[in-house]
Amino acid sequence: MATRCFKLGDLAALVGGEVEGDAQTEIRGVAGIREAKAGDITFVANPKYEEFLGTTAASAVIGAANLDCAQPVIRVGNPYFAYLQVLSLFAQDRAVQYARGVHESAVIEKTAQLGEDVAVGPFCQIARGVRVGRGTTILCGSFIGEGVEIGDDCLLYPNVTVREGTIVGDRVIVQPGAVIGADGFGFAKDGNRHHKVPQIGRVVVEDDVEIGANTCIDRATTGETRVHRGTKIDNLVQVAHNVIVGEDCVIAAQAGISGSTELGRNVTLAGQAGLVGHITIGDNAVVGAQGGVTKSIPADTTVSGYPAREHGLARRLYAHTARLPELFRRVRELERIVAELEKGASVDSSATDD
Amino acid sequence: MATRCFKLGDLAALVGGEVEGDAQTEIRGVAGIREAKAGDITFVANPKYEEFLGTTAASAVIGAANLDCAQPVIRVGNPYFAYLQVLSLFAQDRAVQYARGVHESAVIEKTAQLGEDVAVGPFCQIARGVRVGRGTTILCGSFIGEGVEIGDDCLLYPNVTVREGTIVGDRVIVQPGAVIGADGFGFAKDGNRHHKVPQIGRVVVEDDVEIGANTCIDRATTGETRVHRGTKIDNLVQVAHNVIVGEDCVIAAQAGISGSTELGRNVTLAGQAGLVGHITIGDNAVVGAQGGVTKSIPADTTVSGYPAREHGLARRLYAHTARLPELFRRVRELERIVAELEKGASVDSSATDD
Amino acid sequence: MATRCFKLGDLAALVGGEVEGDAQTEIRGVAGIREAKAGDITFVANPKYEEFLGTTAASAVIGAANLDCAQPVIRVGNPYFAYLQVLSLFAQDRAVQYARGVHESAVIEKTAQLGEDVAVGPFCQIARGVRVGRGTTILCGSFIGEGVEIGDDCLLYPNVTVREGTIVGDRVIVQPGAVIGADGFGFAKDGNRHHKVPQIGRVVVEDDVEIGANTCIDRATTGETRVHRGTKIDNLVQVAHNVIVGEDCVIAAQAGISGSTELGRNVTLAGQAGLVGHITIGDNAVVGAQGGVTKSIPADTTVSGYPAREHGLARRLYAHTARLPELFRRVRELERIVAELEKGASVDSSATDD
Repeated sequence: MATRCFKLGDLAALVGGEVEGDAQTEIRGVAGIREAKAGDITFVANPKYEEFLGTTAASAVIGAANLDCAQPVIRVGNPYFAYLQVLSLFAQDRAVQYARGVHESAVIEKTAQLGEDVAVGPFCQIARGVRVGRGTTILCGSFIGEGVEIGDDCLLYPNVTVREGTIVGDRVIVQPGAVIGADGFGFAKDGNRHHKVPQIGRVVVEDDVEIGANTCIDRATTGETRVHRGTKIDNLVQVAHNVIVGEDCVIAAQAGISGSTELGRNVTLAGQAGLVGHITIGDNAVVGAQGGVTKSIPADTTVSGYPAREHGLARRLYAHTARLPELFRRVRELERIVAELEKGASVDSSATDD
Repeated sequence: MATRCFKLGDLAALVGGEVEGDAQTEIRGVAGIREAKAGDITFVANPKYEEFLGTTAASAVIGAANLDCAQPVIRVGNPYFAYLQVLSLFAQDRAVQYARGVHESAVIEKTAQLGEDVAVGPFCQIARGVRVGRGTTILCGSFIGEGVEIGDDCLLYPNVTVREGTIVGDRVIVQPGAVIGADGFGFAKDGNRHHKVPQIGRVVVEDDVEIGANTCIDRATTGETRVHRGTKIDNLVQVAHNVIVGEDCVIAAQAGISGSTELGRNVTLAGQAGLVGHITIGDNAVVGAQGGVTKSIPADTTVSGYPAREHGLARRLYAHTARLPELFRRVRELERIVAELEKGASVDSSATDD
Repeated sequence: MATRCFKLGDLAALVGGEVEGDAQTEIRGVAGIREAKAGDITFVANPKYEEFLGTTAASAVIGAANLDCAQPVIRVGNPYFAYLQVLSLFAQDRAVQYARGVHESAVIEKTAQLGEDVAVGPFCQIARGVRVGRGTTILCGSFIGEGVEIGDDCLLYPNVTVREGTIVGDRVIVQPGAVIGADGFGFAKDGNRHHKVPQIGRVVVEDDVEIGANTCIDRATTGETRVHRGTKIDNLVQVAHNVIVGEDCVIAAQAGISGSTELGRNVTLAGQAGLVGHITIGDNAVVGAQGGVTKSIPADTTVSGYPAREHGLARRLYAHTARLPELFRRVRELERIVAELEKGASVDSSATDD
């Protein structure tokens, strides 16, 4: 990251922020607050990291208006987004440039249509009737099944599997090993045996979605499994058949969504959260890490725990649970005193607890 | 799905059901109750979806004897299985036909034996001594290790890895990215260091098993990890070394089974359930979603929660936990009243709670 | 495993143990206590398996000094490590020998440097500037991205993806389907949309690490995600961007570590454990299965449950929770008696619980 150099003032202009300190400070890289060295710019968006302001070697900081900071600083309303913008500037030199064109080893069926400027790496198979848009990159060992449509400017990393009939929008990023369009998990029991329910629906992944490494999005039984525009999905996530994920959701690693469940817009699932099937999650809802959601959640609600409850309540219950030993002691003491009182008052206590 | 057309009466005959309404109704497709359009047949197996009977555009419904339904309906004892049968009829036209024979790019060792009518896709490697049965399909980028035996009519999707010595029965389906036969996770500590315990056992996957996308089934340390006939495993599941999974089990996505644990027949693990090692799960047991099983479970038992308890008890405990704030208030009030009573009665209360 | 034969006394000498019984006993294999047949040696490290000593067909046993055992036995301080040593002896014959050299189908960029005695399987791509050390094996379908450095004597199983810039030490084992160096999951919100934060850092995997099947270790945003020497990671584990995992840790299947969290040395995460981001886990800490860690943990601490608490406390709280129905009954009974006492004493009870 040492190949470019910017003046702090120019970076502030880029992100719409204000410089406090020397606007001529030269910035040659971007780094986390603990790793930063002289010449780097860093940022503070999470208050946890303010403590490192005193010791960081960074030459400048991106922070909010009220950040208490001795270094030259770019003050801006959304420090994390400003950091993204500055980092993007430096990242341009670092991005791998994948050779355009189709590698000679790739197997492309005659009926597949590839747009201009695509890149298809070695050992990819592109099946019958596939359409790939302009500028899309498909890397080593990926499989694109029959009739799949992939839009423009997508990036599919190595060893991705996209099964037949899947529709992928523009600017979609698929990390390595992800599987889109595997069969949904549907079996009907007849006697003791489980019989496979054919899974003849498809998956639709809309524009600007990102899908994490080794994540699985299953095809629908009939109809569609759909991930709407702008949603970001982390690694090792399970999206079952006929799930609908709304726009601009964020789904963290190892979360799982069971069949036919529907998420609204801007829903957040934290890591390892799990949702049962056939429920709806309202817009802007948040499920905490490891939250186990057993029923539908209204919009604008944060839930956590198992079974998932409104987050404030869940916290209160966990706090109360932590005080159970105390409560047992208090009840024991009450029982002792009350027994004494009873002796004195000779109250009828025949209806005792068994 | 619009290429075939059946009379409702004929479908009823196929599934052994009775038509109520016009048996001449023409059915050209199958769809979920909300997505169905005119010409489609749909089904109601889950009461949650009865509410859509009033608005669905479906031309007919598959349902139970007591389903209250204005549309022409096929009444049958097991609506979901009947739906499977009807869907299978329409699915035949949709199934991808994989070209038979071995793709020229595949690397097949000389000592490997391939049965009649196999299909091996591009970029597969089939190692020494492998035997593949008749009619089996192995798709793009899959690796079949030394000495593996795969039965008849299996379907291995792209990018599957089957390591050395694994035995796979007939009609087994392996979704993309699954890994069968990776090393079990065994390390012995000597001082501060972990030393790898060789994993020289194997995996046996019996007939009619399905293995989900990116699921991992580890080889045994010595002996076998075995998945018995008819068991269905969803995506991203972990089956550790020396685990035995009985016949006709259903293991949902992201569940995990630790080393040497044994499941009986017809066990159900819901999503994200986790089982410690070295325990046994009895026949027909059910573990709820995210259930954390810390000890053996007898047959015919449903458990849930962490630590997993009998489901009725677990529900009761969760309900009681939800009432903890109330209980704390009640105890506080008792303490107040009892203190008043003590004042009146001058009971000895020297043994107070600290 | 029947190809070699050792005298029990020689095995005892190998592991530094003492024979009790016939040191001339011939050992031709190693097996679990239930599967062992005549000629096999087995071991007892977990007391759960002592019950099978009466029925095992094994010809000898490895056990601790106090193991009560009728068979010839090798007594040793660390039976599991002794078992590893004996098993390693027999495992030598079983290990697959991967052909050295580069398979003709592999795509190796001109600027890549491969050490002596490497093996690169079919359908691997090795990108620009990669360096691979002596004796390393890279199997079918694996992708090694630009500038990756891999040390000596590593073993990468099929379908592994190692993205650009990753550094891998010596003797690292990567099970099939693992993904090293995928983008960290970082997005900054601007209005309603999530914008991708470039992930230009790298992953460093030090010597003697093992990485499980389909496990994901994300590259850092800037700087490094690092797994220190000797750490063992099981299948389907998520290690997020900028995580630091100390030396000699053990991370069981399906565990997840969120961004920027740091583990000390010799930390154990049991299966499905989850850690939030930006916390530190002290040396020798243990997180129980499914434990949900929401804040930093000091060294030498065992935690479990959700939210994770010190294990003894967590157990106590679970036990108390199980007694909640009883506690509710006791409070109800107290209320009844106290009401009776109040009637007798006419205590002021105006301040009742609402």
